Amino acid sequence: MKFFNVKTVAETLEVIARQFAPVRQPVTLPLGEALGLVLAEDVISAEQVPHFSRSTVDGYAVRAKDTYGASDSLPAFLDIQGKIEMGKIAGLLLREGQAQAIPTGGMIPDGADSVVMIEHVEEVGDLLNVFRQVSPGENMIRAGDDVQTGELVMAAGQRLRPQDLGVLAAIGKTSVSVYPRPIVAILSTGDEIVPSDKQELAPGEIRDINSMTIGAAARACGAEVIEGGIVQDDFDAFFSRAQELFQQADLLLLSGGSSVGTRDYTERVMQSLGDPGVLVHGVSIKPGKPTILAKAGEKPIMGLPGHPASALIIFHLFTAPLIAQLEGVLPSHLDKRIMARISRNIPSAVGRSDYVRVKLEKRGEEWWAQPVFGKSGLISTLVKSDGMVEIAANKEGIMEGEFVRVHLFH
Amino acid sequence: MKFFNVKTVAETLEVIARQFAPVRQPVTLPLGEALGLVLAEDVISAEQVPHFSRSTVDGYAVRAKDTYGASDSLPAFLDIQGKIEMGKIAGLLLREGQAQAIPTGGMIPDGADSVVMIEHVEEVGDLLNVFRQVSPGENMIRAGDDVQTGELVMAAGQRLRPQDLGVLAAIGKTSVSVYPRPIVAILSTGDEIVPSDKQELAPGEIRDINSMTIGAAARACGAEVIEGGIVQDDFDAFFSRAQELFQQADLLLLSGGSSVGTRDYTERVMQSLGDPGVLVHGVSIKPGKPTILAKAGEKPIMGLPGHPASALIIFHLFTAPLIAQLEGVLPSHLDKRIMARISRNIPSAVGRSDYVRVKLEKRGEEWWAQPVFGKSGLISTLVKSDGMVEIAANKEGIMEGEFVRVHLFH
Repeated sequence: MKFFNVKTVAETLEVIARQFAPVRQPVTLPLGEALGLVLAEDVISAEQVPHFSRSTVDGYAVRAKDTYGASDSLPAFLDIQGKIEMGKIAGLLLREGQAQAIPTGGMIPDGADSVVMIEHVEEVGDLLNVFRQVSPGENMIRAGDDVQTGELVMAAGQRLRPQDLGVLAAIGKTSVSVYPRPIVAILSTGDEIVPSDKQELAPGEIRDINSMTIGAAARACGAEVIEGGIVQDDFDAFFSRAQELFQQADLLLLSGGSSVGTRDYTERVMQSLGDPGVLVHGVSIKPGKPTILAKAGEKPIMGLPGHPASALIIFHLFTAPLIAQLEGVLPSHLDKRIMARISRNIPSAVGRSDYVRVKLEKRGEEWWAQPVFGKSGLISTLVKSDGMVEIAANKEGIMEGEFVRVHLFH
Repeated sequence: MKFFNVKTVAETLEVIARQFAPVRQPVTLPLGEALGLVLAEDVISAEQVPHFSRSTVDGYAVRAKDTYGASDSLPAFLDIQGKIEMGKIAGLLLREGQAQAIPTGGMIPDGADSVVMIEHVEEVGDLLNVFRQVSPGENMIRAGDDVQTGELVMAAGQRLRPQDLGVLAAIGKTSVSVYPRPIVAILSTGDEIVPSDKQELAPGEIRDINSMTIGAAARACGAEVIEGGIVQDDFDAFFSRAQELFQQADLLLLSGGSSVGTRDYTERVMQSLGDPGVLVHGVSIKPGKPTILAKAGEKPIMGLPGHPASALIIFHLFTAPLIAQLEGVLPSHLDKRIMARISRNIPSAVGRSDYVRVKLEKRGEEWWAQPVFGKSGLISTLVKSDGMVEIAANKEGIMEGEFVRVHLFH
């Protein structure tokens, strides 16, 4: 049973993509509070943007035909008929042979179809000398060029960036339906773990680093975090605290349990929280093999390795995409990886994905990735690293100079 | 005078890097509130991490010498002398020929120098059969392996990531000195601009999109934002509102003013706020040429183009690094760009940096960047884009299939 549940990295990501969705109902928020949240509705524009045809330069609104053939040596002559004011309606119809002064952003008058730039004309009393011809539509944006009435402006599943809020503001939306931030609860386990603010450590004790790092990483992904504290290696205490947190959260993360005894507790707790239970029991990856993923009702529970550096790597690989699913992001979202060359040979075992921490260094125009070596328990290796490189399960290693994809840490 | 102040992209970035620093004094915050802020102190560890030598596996603490030559056919035999409890002091001295059971994370007893994994032994009563030899230090982390006492763990200027908070927690720090979030005030100008929540637009009016997009982008960079509203194209009203906001903020952003008239106002206002005044008046870039940068006292003022899409591109290029300077980040921080191939030829004028919006698409293992065309006034082009590509000032364009660096939008 356990044997069948050890999965590859790709299989684990597929389980995550298939099994989980936002737990809570969408809420309607003012635009100004929606940055970074995920749209829960398709937005169709009830207006056109811009609302009216606008000049994109300072100049004169004209009929293009009146400028055809105009040049420095043979200017066209047009009658200046007033001036369009910024933010005001262009009242006057523009007739053949006429020009109206217009500022950038000014409304194009009826009858005009283009704008001559101020650099290409000369005013002589009421007469405009035009030294350059324009074509219809030149130096202007037509009403509806940006957004048409009835157009699908944005689809549900889009994480709202500044520009997305901008287009929503442009079409007159003042609030949007978004998924609430998922609530992530974190519980650390282990008889040796003490709170991170304990000053004098007894021999054998270590501070709870994972609550800090995993909590911060979850916040950086947009989640709200409940810090569940630390429980000892005792099944009843562990289960009752886990159950309590699970009821308040959309995702429960259990950290610790690297020793055989604690791992067994962790698995039993996860299995006891509800059906269908454990989906992934171990991933063929280094570091991070003891990763466990379960589901109780519709909600996920994830068991992370106890070593802080392994726990953070597993967080980047699996927990971050899981949180994105709970936020409502469509699975096709962009992963931000950069290409770099590896600075030395790294051997690896076939059949297992290896993740190597790297520091990036620019040589000329190219990024080079230098491996940061150290046992997976060393948190300082992550501080020295900018990201990590995967050595795929089917490879025996990577050669110096080879291009690799670097998954950047926040 | 103006002529000399038109700068290239690189020159403008250099002015930003050289001229600006955090405006406000560092504050001391609890670790849990410091995520994303920038360290204002060098942190030197008063402790070693780990605090004691630990096992990294479940197994038996031994003296490596006692296992030399051990194999499946010729095991070494050791006396089992008790069991080390998790989180407890290892009390018993380990002597020659002895082994003590130890869990992952357990404290290595005095006398032991390595750990044999549980997979490589067999217990027969009080006798341990060891089937694999280990070398000194194997399967354990020594006290201080992660961090040494007196070591510089992190230098001022580091933006605190989850792993950085982790190492600070590991060395027993509970609070850190960081620079406070910079305060960014935004003021929109233009007679045609109306608040973005106005429902019925009169002809000639457009909604204030830049306050929304630039405000959100500044928040995404870690700033606090004061939304200064909208002023008309009137010098006195503009100057008095700008001055009021400038006093409250670390950075004042002026948005709008694409027409010649408004541009003049904007420059006069920026010049009037104090010495040394305007540093950059225009950048040789498309879009975004009318960008202005000034300094009054120690604080920056930036004039952004009025077109929402141009304004956001200029924000990514110049305002984001400027905010980072005000946050206290060392100038060498990593820029997150990915390499992609361009999907078609794009011509460009020599002597000017062009920024082309692109959508990323994965073809096999490679990213391809597809240009998203549209006039710079169209905010919808940014919604369709994942990032932008620079065509350097010394290039006549880029050819289909050429590698380009994509600056990703948030």
